[in-house]
Amino acid sequence: MAVKLPLPDPAALHSVPGVRLGTARAGIRKADRTDLLVVELAQGTQAAGLFTRNRFCAAPVLVCKEHLARRTDIRALVVNTGNANAGTGARGLEDARATCAALARLQGIAPEQVLPFSTGVIMEPLPLGRLLAGLPAAVAGLRHDNWLSAAQAIMTTDTQPKAASRRVTIGGRQIAITGIAKGAGMIRPDMATMLSFVATDAPIAPALLRAALDHAAARSFNAITVDGDTSTNDSFILVATGAAGGEPIARPDSEAFLALRAALTEVSVALAQAIVRDAEGATKFITVQVEGGRDDAECRKVAYAIAHSPLVKTAFFASDPNLGRILAAIGYAGIDDLDVSGIELYLDDVKVASGGGRDPAYREEDGQRVMRQAEITVRVALNRGHAAATVWTCDLSHDYVKINAEYRT
Amino acid sequence: MAVKLPLPDPAALHSVPGVRLGTARAGIRKADRTDLLVVELAQGTQAAGLFTRNRFCAAPVLVCKEHLARRTDIRALVVNTGNANAGTGARGLEDARATCAALARLQGIAPEQVLPFSTGVIMEPLPLGRLLAGLPAAVAGLRHDNWLSAAQAIMTTDTQPKAASRRVTIGGRQIAITGIAKGAGMIRPDMATMLSFVATDAPIAPALLRAALDHAAARSFNAITVDGDTSTNDSFILVATGAAGGEPIARPDSEAFLALRAALTEVSVALAQAIVRDAEGATKFITVQVEGGRDDAECRKVAYAIAHSPLVKTAFFASDPNLGRILAAIGYAGIDDLDVSGIELYLDDVKVASGGGRDPAYREEDGQRVMRQAEITVRVALNRGHAAATVWTCDLSHDYVKINAEYRT
Repeated sequence: MAVKLPLPDPAALHSVPGVRLGTARAGIRKADRTDLLVVELAQGTQAAGLFTRNRFCAAPVLVCKEHLARRTDIRALVVNTGNANAGTGARGLEDARATCAALARLQGIAPEQVLPFSTGVIMEPLPLGRLLAGLPAAVAGLRHDNWLSAAQAIMTTDTQPKAASRRVTIGGRQIAITGIAKGAGMIRPDMATMLSFVATDAPIAPALLRAALDHAAARSFNAITVDGDTSTNDSFILVATGAAGGEPIARPDSEAFLALRAALTEVSVALAQAIVRDAEGATKFITVQVEGGRDDAECRKVAYAIAHSPLVKTAFFASDPNLGRILAAIGYAGIDDLDVSGIELYLDDVKVASGGGRDPAYREEDGQRVMRQAEITVRVALNRGHAAATVWTCDLSHDYVKINAEYRT
Repeated sequence: MAVKLPLPDPAALHSVPGVRLGTARAGIRKADRTDLLVVELAQGTQAAGLFTRNRFCAAPVLVCKEHLARRTDIRALVVNTGNANAGTGARGLEDARATCAALARLQGIAPEQVLPFSTGVIMEPLPLGRLLAGLPAAVAGLRHDNWLSAAQAIMTTDTQPKAASRRVTIGGRQIAITGIAKGAGMIRPDMATMLSFVATDAPIAPALLRAALDHAAARSFNAITVDGDTSTNDSFILVATGAAGGEPIARPDSEAFLALRAALTEVSVALAQAIVRDAEGATKFITVQVEGGRDDAECRKVAYAIAHSPLVKTAFFASDPNLGRILAAIGYAGIDDLDVSGIELYLDDVKVASGGGRDPAYREEDGQRVMRQAEITVRVALNRGHAAATVWTCDLSHDYVKINAEYRT
């Protein structure tokens, strides 16, 4: 039950020269579903990654960090769904390393040139034998135009595959940017999506690739929340194969870098929003804009207080303009010297509150009209500075509880 | 659907000399329910209060703070349910003051000797006319043995009235301590209960009354959570009439003070736990104990991360030992230098995790057995210090969403 999330059109997902993708049915958790993805990256590829800050981070996250610390000329990604290989201790690390070693042997590369990813149930051992047995089939199926199958292969409770793609012309050359993501629960900043991979064939210096990753993440995966739970496995990987040719982009103030960064950010925002639109049980897509704060941090505090409140989220689910709950969330967001009499609250174009209470011109039927929509913008003007922040979230429905109560059955 | 919460036995609710309670049907929000409570306090009573830290705090909370700042010889409390008088701006303040003035006139006391409280829907104007019209009937009904009706009069989405009572002998005199509370949603520390009033007839110096209040609150109302939403109206009031006679308790290290404080804390814990047991949609009562932390603050961080996680709470609802979700919550609780390999996780007596993953001796059927219980203790040993903290919470069920989606209908 995704909120206005069309199925990705395979024809609109541009191949990225230097990137081939292959999937397989390894039977990790269920017998009859595609649950294994191998991404092959051409020689010369540079990679950068951003990972969960959860202290109980998964074994593959630790291995990814190790490998990226040693070398950025990554040549393959391997992803399984069905099991997160998190909370699995020393054995989990061994399993993640064994996965990299097996794929490295098949591909004739070094194990440190492989990045492993897992998503699924926590604290159960990875079925390593079945995973390794599935690798040859995934490798045999490597193709340039396999992005949609790849997006499908990494789904867990996602109801739809998530993929986005753009083309930009930089220095006279056409550059492709294509990415996939998965995630529908356990979603909150640092990181938000459980897994996202974005690839481009642009040639770019490693330091600038990292800068583009940070820029895009702050505006996309780190600006969404479903349930406030930070996953143990969240990973966002950006790879640049350089296959488009030409001089590497090397200056942070160059037009080429800014154009590439903007396109990467667009793809990342599209993927991050797709995660919220497909969030577990979501029936509404909510944009929370907070403006007029003293700094970004306080704007984000207020935005997340609203976006995390179970009471606000159930009111959206019910299409009930019980908007005092939003005022309450603003009030407990943790800004100690907040003067509530200066705050204005808008629901789309409807001014709801001002002067510390309901706006004199507010009419319940106007609030009701907006609340019935599938997409709603909550705008809070703090009127005490010039900073702003935007967060995307969804409502909290019966189905969120149903899905998460029955996750393992 | 409360979790093992017996109806209070009226015979076990001791009258507190100096305190009389009267209720009325004022038609604040619904025509046919008792929704107004007046508590009369004898001359010589001392009062202390602790209030929400929500910046959008309700008008009656502001008025309570004003009145308590001017004088502690409070002579009456007035409480309405059905409307929170919060997010109501300047008019809300006028309404709360008018309520105090009207009751003061009826009782022949000063308006500053009245403390007003409201609970119910936010951001709708208080129906002042109906409230004032109900006051004479509440005053006419003042009685010493009216504690159960009082507990019923302040309910909102509570399914059961909440009251607790103890007797202690101090300095050869029998002292009564009786309290009531209400609250079932929008519950989180600072403050937890929306409203609680505890009275004793012990004679006690104002500074020690305040100290006893802080002590009891930290161990009761500030150690529970239902949904992480801090209400705009939370108030905890402790009154001591001194009607038992004798010398006022004046030394913080005296046996008399420690005995009184212990009994007050017991009553407060019983009321706070009753709120969690009766939480919206709750089917499980969960005790989260975190021990072996470096300080109280980090123990509370971990306990609240577990107690607030929608994924952990839905797993409890489903009786599903998907206990990796608890590890994930520990991991994102915000302790940056946490070594997860040193952590142990227990579910009642069952050791679930150690060494950064599932404990070798853990068997799913043992976890399943404990998860089926209505009362469960989650114990986390951080093994890095000597501090500890306990938090009480409940599961997240279909009915939580149902109740909060349909609150105003």
